[in-house]
Amino acid sequence: MSEPAISALPMQVREPGLPAKVTIYEVGPRDGLQNEKGIVDTTVKAEFVRRLLDAGLPIVEATSFVHPRWVPQLADAADLMTELMTDLGELGRALPVLVPNERGLERALELGLRHVAIFGSATETFARKNLNRSLDAQFAMFEPVVSRARDAGLDVRAYVSMCFGDPWEGAVPIEQVVSVGKRLLDLGASQLSLGDTIGVGTAGHVTALVDAFTAAGVGTERLALHFHDTYGQALANAYAGLRAGVTTFDASAGGLGGCPYAKSATGNLATEDLVWFLEGLGIEHGVDLGKVVATSVWMAGELGRPSPSAVVRALAG
Amino acid sequence: MSEPAISALPMQVREPGLPAKVTIYEVGPRDGLQNEKGIVDTTVKAEFVRRLLDAGLPIVEATSFVHPRWVPQLADAADLMTELMTDLGELGRALPVLVPNERGLERALELGLRHVAIFGSATETFARKNLNRSLDAQFAMFEPVVSRARDAGLDVRAYVSMCFGDPWEGAVPIEQVVSVGKRLLDLGASQLSLGDTIGVGTAGHVTALVDAFTAAGVGTERLALHFHDTYGQALANAYAGLRAGVTTFDASAGGLGGCPYAKSATGNLATEDLVWFLEGLGIEHGVDLGKVVATSVWMAGELGRPSPSAVVRALAG
Repeated sequence: MSEPAISALPMQVREPGLPAKVTIYEVGPRDGLQNEKGIVDTTVKAEFVRRLLDAGLPIVEATSFVHPRWVPQLADAADLMTELMTDLGELGRALPVLVPNERGLERALELGLRHVAIFGSATETFARKNLNRSLDAQFAMFEPVVSRARDAGLDVRAYVSMCFGDPWEGAVPIEQVVSVGKRLLDLGASQLSLGDTIGVGTAGHVTALVDAFTAAGVGTERLALHFHDTYGQALANAYAGLRAGVTTFDASAGGLGGCPYAKSATGNLATEDLVWFLEGLGIEHGVDLGKVVATSVWMAGELGRPSPSAVVRALAG
Repeated sequence: MSEPAISALPMQVREPGLPAKVTIYEVGPRDGLQNEKGIVDTTVKAEFVRRLLDAGLPIVEATSFVHPRWVPQLADAADLMTELMTDLGELGRALPVLVPNERGLERALELGLRHVAIFGSATETFARKNLNRSLDAQFAMFEPVVSRARDAGLDVRAYVSMCFGDPWEGAVPIEQVVSVGKRLLDLGASQLSLGDTIGVGTAGHVTALVDAFTAAGVGTERLALHFHDTYGQALANAYAGLRAGVTTFDASAGGLGGCPYAKSATGNLATEDLVWFLEGLGIEHGVDLGKVVATSVWMAGELGRPSPSAVVRALAG
């Protein structure tokens, strides 16, 4: 009773009321690799980014200019960006990079990069753990980063971490997240990426958070959602966000990723599982699923462990 | 920077319009264990069922009276049910069992069981592969099974397999699934369990299928949904089904399971991931999550491999 190969794409059945198009913001090279135990070669990272772009991913966050003492995995950030700019020209300069502080921004400016991202916290405890300052003090720290970036013509994305739950504080009040997000937008960020860093959020919580931003005057076009699959909720949460009108979703090829400062954070929503979901709904995403799967299979070989993405396992099996 | 233990339950945020209560139909002991390579001891199976009941699962499908040549893993079906009835009395007699044919039903009747399930196919090819007859001929085969069961006062559930895609035929037309389901109800089945046996379905497809049944006069109270997580869609699909009004979901403790006749079928939706999702939405489910997780951890030890459930991995880590 041998079976033929499964079709590599699901049957399409649209659902009324959903957006026609979604932007997948690929975070595998940054959020994925920063949490790997081993150090990946710069040439392998560059190849990873190139392959993701070639697969049609419209935005690929390439690395972080974090201090090598904190994230040695990304100590080659400048070398990587130089290699990518040599290779890709303007396309390389347009790849977003995370800048944790002014020093990180300076390095991005020196290289002539065009898109940066800052990484804020929705909670007091995580602000202290990750930024070494209070929740309120983070805005004073980010203010010169964002204003200098904006003055130089750069676009700034703001991550908000621990938007649903915090390992030290438990559930995070929705109004607190909205307040933090609005303050980051007021500094000059163009987009918020609302992160469920430890993956505890559920669908109704996602809907309520997005609705609360909308009610506070922040439209869904300024929001992205960033889910981790710690409790298996990432895709259901993305579905809730999509229904609430969000059209940008962070994902990581092969489901790589986590957070080096929160052991309970496991991999990101896998790009492939999100693509399968969007494809089934007939929502435009622009991604060649076979190429992303092949990239994740190759990367799993480089990392020496299988991809946690269900779609990668199913299609590469 | 050590972290405290994560709360074992998510923050509750309700979503308007969802059902207040869901019934989880636990299929781990049958659909899970029938696909294990090794043979699990009858005493371990009995303990598995008892622990699931003790965790608050309202329905636990215990085994299948399939011919041992086809599924040697369940060759002890009669012994298991005898042990459970000795232990649990009426509660043991009420545990549903799968009966593939009249011979299987006879064995269930001999033991005095009260709930049986039949396993139909939505596609021609799978009917031939699994039942050795045509799609149409399956109804003639099931007719005496259901009528004899009903005459004896038994309740009959009907599984419909391959409701979304079929490994040989590809996408399965919705009207074909509705037609098969209605014919099984017409025979006397009380509930349909619509199965995405190979896990290819996506959220819009689920919504459309449930809506098509409703339009054909089959209310959601007669439907259950049965998802496999092959492409990571199981929980998002359950969310779509819940939104469409379905209130019974099949799930398997620890995400055990698959289908012995379709290699591309991987584990069922994990009971724990579903409970986390429902708990977050404030939907009544009656299950003690900690007890199910502990049961899955114990069962993983018996099977010698870790649970694929994200919640089990997160909470047992």
